[in-house]
Amino acid sequence: MKPSALQLGVAPPENRGIAVLDFFLRLIAIVGTLASAIAMATTNQTLPFFSQFVRFRAKFNDLPSFTFFVVASSIVSAYLILSLAFSILHIAKANLVNTRVLLLVLDTAAMGLLMAGSAAATAIVQLAHKGNNKVNWFAICQQYNDFCKRVSGSLIGSYAGVVVLILLILLSGVALTRR
Amino acid sequence: MKPSALQLGVAPPENRGIAVLDFFLRLIAIVGTLASAIAMATTNQTLPFFSQFVRFRAKFNDLPSFTFFVVASSIVSAYLILSLAFSILHIAKANLVNTRVLLLVLDTAAMGLLMAGSAAATAIVQLAHKGNNKVNWFAICQQYNDFCKRVSGSLIGSYAGVVVLILLILLSGVALTRR
Repeated sequence: MKPSALQLGVAPPENRGIAVLDFFLRLIAIVGTLASAIAMATTNQTLPFFSQFVRFRAKFNDLPSFTFFVVASSIVSAYLILSLAFSILHIAKANLVNTRVLLLVLDTAAMGLLMAGSAAATAIVQLAHKGNNKVNWFAICQQYNDFCKRVSGSLIGSYAGVVVLILLILLSGVALTRR
Repeated sequence: MKPSALQLGVAPPENRGIAVLDFFLRLIAIVGTLASAIAMATTNQTLPFFSQFVRFRAKFNDLPSFTFFVVASSIVSAYLILSLAFSILHIAKANLVNTRVLLLVLDTAAMGLLMAGSAAATAIVQLAHKGNNKVNWFAICQQYNDFCKRVSGSLIGSYAGVVVLILLILLSGVALTRR
């Protein structure tokens, strides 16, 4: 039995508009998080000089925080791709409530995970750029310049993802009030 | 004009219960974030040996990520204290909608900020404990043992705060569906 237009009529039209906006915001967040995960995961720089025994090489997984960043961004982009199904469901049936609350909670968790990954990576990038004299941690970006540039750039996509997820949570809240 | 019980009757009784739970969860989050901000801000260790010119001393603001952690936790605990007013308002008038959406958005932002501070500090604490051979950053926790213990401990309160904020966002979502 297909629900008639009359049955769906309880949902005001602006809830469908919110669902469409939700869908496109999710697409933007997927592009941002996926791009930053890939950019970070494929970062690796081999220095042009090497001794007989050691090649100087920097990869993202030399630093645990960068590994965490890649894992967190990948999980969040996988979740966002799966959540598109719910987003399409909300466009079709604008008066669903339980799935909206479910998405609200999962979006919140995804935002927290993505923010944790980004902040941990940012703390290490800052250290790589500036170093810290007080505890004798040296800046490594003079040697590994390309590595640092690429790593810093990949943070942009994930912070964009965090902002979009906050907007999605706001939209869910607004949609829940309009029934 | 005081609204009568009949006028407020549109809000189901469980929404008042949610508002009371919301209030107590906020109290827990305030204790957690405030305690961790204070614990981190007052951390400082002077080593028992010193040369003629240098005293070896570790303070939280030697590391920018710890400073960010203190600022973020302080802002979030200040916000949580202010938000108690809204929480009390929701206990009194259980059918308010706009202030619930406002709190939902602010809670989300607060969660993001607190998570960013905690994750950045965790990345640095991990480095202080383990060091990193690949980039020649040495573990400093052998010397600054008390400093490291205190700093690690203060993270617990703020992660507890993050969990409570996620619960508060969930509660807001549930309260918004029950009107």
